[in-house]
Amino acid sequence: MRVLVVYNHPYQGSFCHAILSSVTQGLTRGGHQVDLINLDKDGFDPVLREKDLKAFITASKDLNAAYSLLDEQVLDYKSRLEQAEHLVFIFPIWWELMPALTKGFIDKVIFPGIAYDYISSGNGMVSRLPGLKGVTMITTMNTPSIAYRLLFGNAIKKALLMGTFWKIGIKNRHWMNLAMVKFSKESKRLKWLNNLEDKFKNLK
Amino acid sequence: MRVLVVYNHPYQGSFCHAILSSVTQGLTRGGHQVDLINLDKDGFDPVLREKDLKAFITASKDLNAAYSLLDEQVLDYKSRLEQAEHLVFIFPIWWELMPALTKGFIDKVIFPGIAYDYISSGNGMVSRLPGLKGVTMITTMNTPSIAYRLLFGNAIKKALLMGTFWKIGIKNRHWMNLAMVKFSKESKRLKWLNNLEDKFKNLK
Repeated sequence: MRVLVVYNHPYQGSFCHAILSSVTQGLTRGGHQVDLINLDKDGFDPVLREKDLKAFITASKDLNAAYSLLDEQVLDYKSRLEQAEHLVFIFPIWWELMPALTKGFIDKVIFPGIAYDYISSGNGMVSRLPGLKGVTMITTMNTPSIAYRLLFGNAIKKALLMGTFWKIGIKNRHWMNLAMVKFSKESKRLKWLNNLEDKFKNLK
Repeated sequence: MRVLVVYNHPYQGSFCHAILSSVTQGLTRGGHQVDLINLDKDGFDPVLREKDLKAFITASKDLNAAYSLLDEQVLDYKSRLEQAEHLVFIFPIWWELMPALTKGFIDKVIFPGIAYDYISSGNGMVSRLPGLKGVTMITTMNTPSIAYRLLFGNAIKKALLMGTFWKIGIKNRHWMNLAMVKFSKESKRLKWLNNLEDKFKNLK
């Protein structure tokens, strides 16, 4: 499988980075092809500007005109997204949600003319990525899972998997949440990482 | 009252901009002082970088060392936040959540040593903003309110009001959501704007 990993954490020594290593190693061992987008290292600009709004509106009429308004980086991500059969997000939960960089990736790359089109009869959406079969979101947090669910309604899952990727028609959507990371023991962390490696080795 | 408005929309002709005008006009008519942060116009950088993480960790030990790591813009927002008695957010809902710019404001300004401190006995937080009594979040969306609640669990409210601002101890937290904006009639929009102006004129 061709897997595109979208990674977001500013610190090289973070647990997210260990997760990235395990995911990549698992995928490679399983014979999958891995392409890595490192939003921090790429210096991705997450701000959606007026020209991007113009592209948003233009996309349904003149695709090339719309593309000409987008960042080079966004067009690069577009071509890599078109190759992907599975998409993996890895990011920390900050204030109940993704960091700004990942939100900007969603705003600017899960975009009409790139990831989906609006259907002409109404307000629905249809995927432009026929090869993309699934999305896995891997998050870390210091909150207990149950508190995140009961108090904050699993906000990230609701937004990204019940919302965004459901809306554009991606059927297989998975969330793996590693909670209470700051308070977890070394043995627990190693178990998480081994499980992740196994899981991605056997990705279907 | 001293009110700090944090505004985020890239297009000058947006309905969010009309909301900003009505809110500002209401506040001014009510004799309130208004300070406006326009994240788009300010060219705010929403990306939390490695130096910011270092400031995050340093804040509990050496506040000045932490401040020296932060962006000038963040320190400017800090001093303005310290003056505020009420905080108003105005932004559009994109993909079920706030745009990246507003998320970056939360990540970088609702920050230890600025908006709150960690309590030494554990993982709880205490406000550093004794003057700040309330937060109002005004959002626009094209989704019906009921769909946003049932399908996406009011994700923005859960994250920002049940999460972030509750965590740092702000008691009065309000959400005003203008739904189905794209499909709303002129008369409905005028009613919304008049209501907003009235509400903020009488802000307590």
